[in-house]
Amino acid sequence: MSLLPGIASPADVRRLSRDELRQLAQEMRDRLIDVCSRTGGHIGAGLGVVELTIALHAVFDTPADQIVWDVGHQGYPHKLLTGRNNRLETLRQEGGLSGFLKRTESEYDTFGAGHAATAISAALGMAAGRDVMGEQFKVAAVIGDGSLGSGLAYEGLNNAGHSDRDIIVVLNDNEMSIAPNVGAMHKYLTSIQRNPLYNRLRSRIGELVDQAPGPFQSAGTLLRKWEESVKSFLTPGVLFEELGFRYFGPIDGHDIDALLDTFTAVRGMNTPRLVHVITQKGRGFPAGDHGEKWHALPPGHDPATGKVLNATTGNPAYTAVYGKGLAELGAERKDVAVITAAMPGGTGTAAFAKAYPERFFDVGIAEGHGVTFAAGLATRGVRPIVTIYSTFLQRGYDNIIHDAALQKLPVVFAMDRAGLVGEDGETHMGLYDIPYMLTVPNMTVTAPKDGTELLGLLRAAVDHEDGPFCFRYPRDVTPDVPPAFADVKAVPYATWEVERRGRDLAILAIGTMVQPALDAAAQLAAEGLEITVVNCRYIKPYDAATLDAILAEHTQLLMVEEGVVTNGFGAYMSAIVQRLAPQVRTAVHGVPDRIIYAAPRKKQLAMLGLDAAGIAERVRALRNQEAFAS
Amino acid sequence: MSLLPGIASPADVRRLSRDELRQLAQEMRDRLIDVCSRTGGHIGAGLGVVELTIALHAVFDTPADQIVWDVGHQGYPHKLLTGRNNRLETLRQEGGLSGFLKRTESEYDTFGAGHAATAISAALGMAAGRDVMGEQFKVAAVIGDGSLGSGLAYEGLNNAGHSDRDIIVVLNDNEMSIAPNVGAMHKYLTSIQRNPLYNRLRSRIGELVDQAPGPFQSAGTLLRKWEESVKSFLTPGVLFEELGFRYFGPIDGHDIDALLDTFTAVRGMNTPRLVHVITQKGRGFPAGDHGEKWHALPPGHDPATGKVLNATTGNPAYTAVYGKGLAELGAERKDVAVITAAMPGGTGTAAFAKAYPERFFDVGIAEGHGVTFAAGLATRGVRPIVTIYSTFLQRGYDNIIHDAALQKLPVVFAMDRAGLVGEDGETHMGLYDIPYMLTVPNMTVTAPKDGTELLGLLRAAVDHEDGPFCFRYPRDVTPDVPPAFADVKAVPYATWEVERRGRDLAILAIGTMVQPALDAAAQLAAEGLEITVVNCRYIKPYDAATLDAILAEHTQLLMVEEGVVTNGFGAYMSAIVQRLAPQVRTAVHGVPDRIIYAAPRKKQLAMLGLDAAGIAERVRALRNQEAFAS
Repeated sequence: MSLLPGIASPADVRRLSRDELRQLAQEMRDRLIDVCSRTGGHIGAGLGVVELTIALHAVFDTPADQIVWDVGHQGYPHKLLTGRNNRLETLRQEGGLSGFLKRTESEYDTFGAGHAATAISAALGMAAGRDVMGEQFKVAAVIGDGSLGSGLAYEGLNNAGHSDRDIIVVLNDNEMSIAPNVGAMHKYLTSIQRNPLYNRLRSRIGELVDQAPGPFQSAGTLLRKWEESVKSFLTPGVLFEELGFRYFGPIDGHDIDALLDTFTAVRGMNTPRLVHVITQKGRGFPAGDHGEKWHALPPGHDPATGKVLNATTGNPAYTAVYGKGLAELGAERKDVAVITAAMPGGTGTAAFAKAYPERFFDVGIAEGHGVTFAAGLATRGVRPIVTIYSTFLQRGYDNIIHDAALQKLPVVFAMDRAGLVGEDGETHMGLYDIPYMLTVPNMTVTAPKDGTELLGLLRAAVDHEDGPFCFRYPRDVTPDVPPAFADVKAVPYATWEVERRGRDLAILAIGTMVQPALDAAAQLAAEGLEITVVNCRYIKPYDAATLDAILAEHTQLLMVEEGVVTNGFGAYMSAIVQRLAPQVRTAVHGVPDRIIYAAPRKKQLAMLGLDAAGIAERVRALRNQEAFAS
Repeated sequence: MSLLPGIASPADVRRLSRDELRQLAQEMRDRLIDVCSRTGGHIGAGLGVVELTIALHAVFDTPADQIVWDVGHQGYPHKLLTGRNNRLETLRQEGGLSGFLKRTESEYDTFGAGHAATAISAALGMAAGRDVMGEQFKVAAVIGDGSLGSGLAYEGLNNAGHSDRDIIVVLNDNEMSIAPNVGAMHKYLTSIQRNPLYNRLRSRIGELVDQAPGPFQSAGTLLRKWEESVKSFLTPGVLFEELGFRYFGPIDGHDIDALLDTFTAVRGMNTPRLVHVITQKGRGFPAGDHGEKWHALPPGHDPATGKVLNATTGNPAYTAVYGKGLAELGAERKDVAVITAAMPGGTGTAAFAKAYPERFFDVGIAEGHGVTFAAGLATRGVRPIVTIYSTFLQRGYDNIIHDAALQKLPVVFAMDRAGLVGEDGETHMGLYDIPYMLTVPNMTVTAPKDGTELLGLLRAAVDHEDGPFCFRYPRDVTPDVPPAFADVKAVPYATWEVERRGRDLAILAIGTMVQPALDAAAQLAAEGLEITVVNCRYIKPYDAATLDAILAEHTQLLMVEEGVVTNGFGAYMSAIVQRLAPQVRTAVHGVPDRIIYAAPRKKQLAMLGLDAAGIAERVRALRNQEAFAS
């Protein structure tokens, strides 16, 4: 008899026997594999924590006790046990379950997260809030080993270890965050796991110490110190102990008995404690180990092989164009280095990494370090290209200003996943990069209209020696099929390109909006409206000569961008146009200042009017308004 | 005979005997105390590292070898030895020596820094750059113990420890960063220093292990493991060893011999290594230990007492008004908590901390954690007030968006030192907060015109339950003397205040610019120009009704702000006005998009036209332009 359909909430989990919990684990795994083969999603992390999730909900008194999952990727099994099993098919669909955890979705989702390493800090806040309010409950943060490379996780550990508060950190160690881990912390964790001697010696020498003869026991400080040393020898988690945590583990994260016993013991304590659980990412997936590909699988894959069934053909993705160009650039220039943050595959930098490992630096989930490290490289004449998703680069904002820009160091920023990111939802939207980069002094801000221009801007970026340079590109395919990098010229600095000339209104478009603007202009031409379209690929500094010419010939401008309108390209140009030609009227067409939720990218664009139809409609409205006003 | 005047560069240091180096140290200390009593500055850190600086330049082949000082506060003695002794009097003056290190100031300043904890990342970048370019030199980062609370420092350590590169980290441990340290790392370092047993046992048990009889030596793995345990017992730096560093220390940072011998040995090695040096902040300052006040002293203090000689009287500083109001708020509401990042004194939160220690959280130099921690507190019904300088809050930007704003949690941000910061210079300017906060969804962005309004916005902020709320205030005195917090009402949400009515032009001013705008209007009235002045204390959401009324009555608007014009309040309003009333002309008056260097704050404001005279001048120019255009 199936158990999963009868689980309405964690209270039902707590009623099951240990054998039944093991059966439940198998049912959950089957369900996840089945559903994700249709919906796509981050299945690897979820399959790794099935038993861990069961044990947490069985031992802790959720929702009163607060479980804080770091990143939502681990959260699918948690959704199955917290009343959302029957909605799992809606995962990552518009209006359906979020691919992450979300406070508005369930009282069991104590803290939303999309970016890694926030859980310890948030959990410590909850524990402190509990103590301020005089309440009684337990708080446990569940965090992956990859997140331990992040400074934020360390700041959380360092503050929690000092606090003496009742807080639990569960380290879900699968030896892989998204890409295989980097850094000393990873080496450290691996050494703990791989050394069976630790566990065998542990009990044996523990006995020896207990049996030490009386005179030795009274030797005072020396013996106590010696015992501490023995303890640090026996306890693999000495590093965590030094940070103020009691360490438990490592324990097998697929052994329900071990998990239940450990959590039951640990729940009853009341100082900072860390449980180290070893799990296997993607455990039980029929197609076996896929390495980095485990991180996420697209909708419509074969669960037996992990292969996508109906792969689309056509133009390449921007990421692929960038990655190929980067590898070619690496051959051309020996002074170019690439920095990424735990995303060699996602950012398309793996080809460069393979060809030029000595010039490739995966810093792990440590974006701030990555930027400052790149600034250090730049002081030595290396030309660093920091390749990080727009949303994650927010974590290096101070480093961009303080270490790259103020010192005018030539660090290049390639911002992938800029704009709307489709099903990845609100935590991963790349909507803020234009505003946050425009305000950085000495920063060149650009966006390509297609794959060829992406390569041209990449070339311009590494040619530019006078300060940092960034370009942004979307999670989408290019409208063109770009040539080899060697055949692409640098896009001339601070230039725009007039793509089409008209007299009724000028559209200033950037990046992904250039092609839809041209399509809109073609539609409008059929209606008798003559529209100028300018590709404003250099947002800052802008092309002053072309802008002057446009202002001389037009009375109305529409700025179009795939980014938030608050302080984006449009607002920036509005203020400039008011200064240069106050008689010219401006309007801004972009993403409104509100949270955009998960949906297919095409649908998001259409919903926001960021396609040819939407742009044409906006132009018509502006023309009507003008006719009415004059 | 004096030695210091003869030191033109570190090469001259290398020619001195050890006795002469000791004499040099005394001369440098005298000079620092003398000059800083007139110029003011961060003297405490400098006095602590006199011998360390001498030893580094004596052993390392600077400038070929790269010494990376974390934060410039430590850098004054370094300036004395690198050709800048005769310019020390110009410290922190306009056109004089920077209070920090600066690449454009000296080839010995390898990396500029004002924010803590960047040195390890930058040094690792230099080491990697050296290896990419096939060069030969040494790289050493000198970092304070307070910076080890920062996640950025940990990210640097974690990446460096893994790298196997030739890199040295010198840990300058004075048990105090700016305020006394917090966190587990601090406890850990203290335990290392305070335990003399470690050092005594070290050699003794080392001998025992060496003398172990043959049969035991061949016991293989068990003995090797045991030795490792003994080593970790004897080596206090086990935490750093676990992170991949060879650890040396702790050594006395005022013992020239110990420093020279250690650095000479360490320089010859070629894997990641950490030298732990114990120093005394402010060593040799006649007035003795001043705790947090050591961090910086103002110009014109008595070196014998540290007291300021001609303290100005008059209106209170914004920081003082805030701090007093905060303590009163703490008495009024038991659900309010305060978070700061290593700056309880600088942010004026010390009074709250003393009165309500259980609701006060100094997270150390860990701004990102502080924000996410506050979001965690907010989930439990606590009302957290994150009090961090505008420039440092840049480090929590992703946390603001991802943890507070997307979840609409009521976290309050009090941004001190917003705007121009005078002599602290370009690394500490609070010029970017309006742009970076305006783009955050769900964020309320405000600025008070005076101390009373600061308290009114503080009250409004803690009353606001619908998402995060920020207010910004300057490093300056208030134009008013505010009443007690209990007597101040909340500033009504999303309202502006028309301060003066005229018909020729409307000034929309925020924060510190309201009073000068009113003064300008008074001047202009004498010339026959009638100017409206609006205090736009709520920047977002703005006061739609008042804006409509203003737009109906004016054809020209001037937005005035103490912040960068690129995407600030003015650009934001320009785009909005273009949408609502395209016939109204707008202009923006603020800080231009370039780096503003150290000078007295009043002078910076005047230079940029951000005073009554400058605003009046801009209004006249706009009126002339309008007259010409029509």
